[in-house]
Amino acid sequence: MPAPVRLLFDYLSPYAYLAWKRIHEIAQRHGRDVEPVPVLLAGLLSANGQKGPAEIPAKRRWVIRDVARTAKAIGVPLAPPPSHPFNPLLALRVSSLPMEELERRRLIDALFAATWGGGPGVTDPRVVARIATEIGLGGEDLVRAAGEPEGKGRVRRQTDEALARGAFGVPTMLVGSELFWGYDALGHVERFLAGDDVLDPDLVARWETLPASATRGV
Amino acid sequence: MPAPVRLLFDYLSPYAYLAWKRIHEIAQRHGRDVEPVPVLLAGLLSANGQKGPAEIPAKRRWVIRDVARTAKAIGVPLAPPPSHPFNPLLALRVSSLPMEELERRRLIDALFAATWGGGPGVTDPRVVARIATEIGLGGEDLVRAAGEPEGKGRVRRQTDEALARGAFGVPTMLVGSELFWGYDALGHVERFLAGDDVLDPDLVARWETLPASATRGV
Repeated sequence: MPAPVRLLFDYLSPYAYLAWKRIHEIAQRHGRDVEPVPVLLAGLLSANGQKGPAEIPAKRRWVIRDVARTAKAIGVPLAPPPSHPFNPLLALRVSSLPMEELERRRLIDALFAATWGGGPGVTDPRVVARIATEIGLGGEDLVRAAGEPEGKGRVRRQTDEALARGAFGVPTMLVGSELFWGYDALGHVERFLAGDDVLDPDLVARWETLPASATRGV
Repeated sequence: MPAPVRLLFDYLSPYAYLAWKRIHEIAQRHGRDVEPVPVLLAGLLSANGQKGPAEIPAKRRWVIRDVARTAKAIGVPLAPPPSHPFNPLLALRVSSLPMEELERRRLIDALFAATWGGGPGVTDPRVVARIATEIGLGGEDLVRAAGEPEGKGRVRRQTDEALARGAFGVPTMLVGSELFWGYDALGHVERFLAGDDVLDPDLVARWETLPASATRGV
């Protein structure tokens, strides 16, 4: 079985939502499984010393328009959650607990729909429990388990591992050790899975070792 | 005559190079002129309090791979300049001086080729003068004029105006007051020019006024 496509995501990111809506079909076309990996975007940003798009007003204006246009163009329902940014930790933790992979996919589907599909958001524990229960899981048990040390530790470990692999944002797609970032990279992912990757290792090596001849004071 | 497509760019950005390579064909298909606007990326980043991709090591790794793959996929020659980041001011100033628009296009073509098309870079005044002279312009006069107060002021004014219009990076495409950011937005630009823009103003308005229920300490 070839390596799965690992999708690193945070419910906070509408681009992660769009990627989630497309990644299964792409992976399936190339005989791959999708392995969703909830990570804390804020942790990736902080460790890389960068701001998120929602934290830069001019960029936030653009992201709203870009996401709205892209969702419409690909026919994915989109409506923002009741608040944004919000605290995604509970939803990430619940989604990281041990369960069957088909259950996990249904749960993530439902939590993304509650976030970006016009639902009630995913910050209220009672709402998260109800969403999980509605798709046949033990919602109250999951929410309780998410608050225990082992439940909390999973998202932290996944975020640390993402950083170790070079992630700096979401969605990140990992195929083996190859990392792709962003919704707009799905075309590259698809070509990579198809064996049509055009990356020139000599060009990459030359570029990576270029000297800088000017820097900003950042 | 409908509004031109204004392309805000800095030679520092390989994505701006890729956009420059495609924007003329896109604009022409929809009966639009392209108006290139050299701006200082560092000024846009600083004013928005953000880092550039080359300033975040993990992101820089990704950008190199993304740009290399995209250039290959669209058949654009790509080789990095002798150093990066470099100081782009001279090239931006020279490109902003008064000249015929066809001359400006040839000059920008040549300076981008010197930067991202495997050329000698654009930081040495003698090299910039030679490049301009080779395409039939008075290279030494241009380099001299670029160093005078009026020459220096143009890029500053263009950068300030870009900020006033909401720009935070390059390439930025402006059609009238509509702003598009990034190479990956060219599909949106093309649909907008074709009159097929799908942006839902109600969705945008709702999203723009959402409350935040959590923030990071940034």
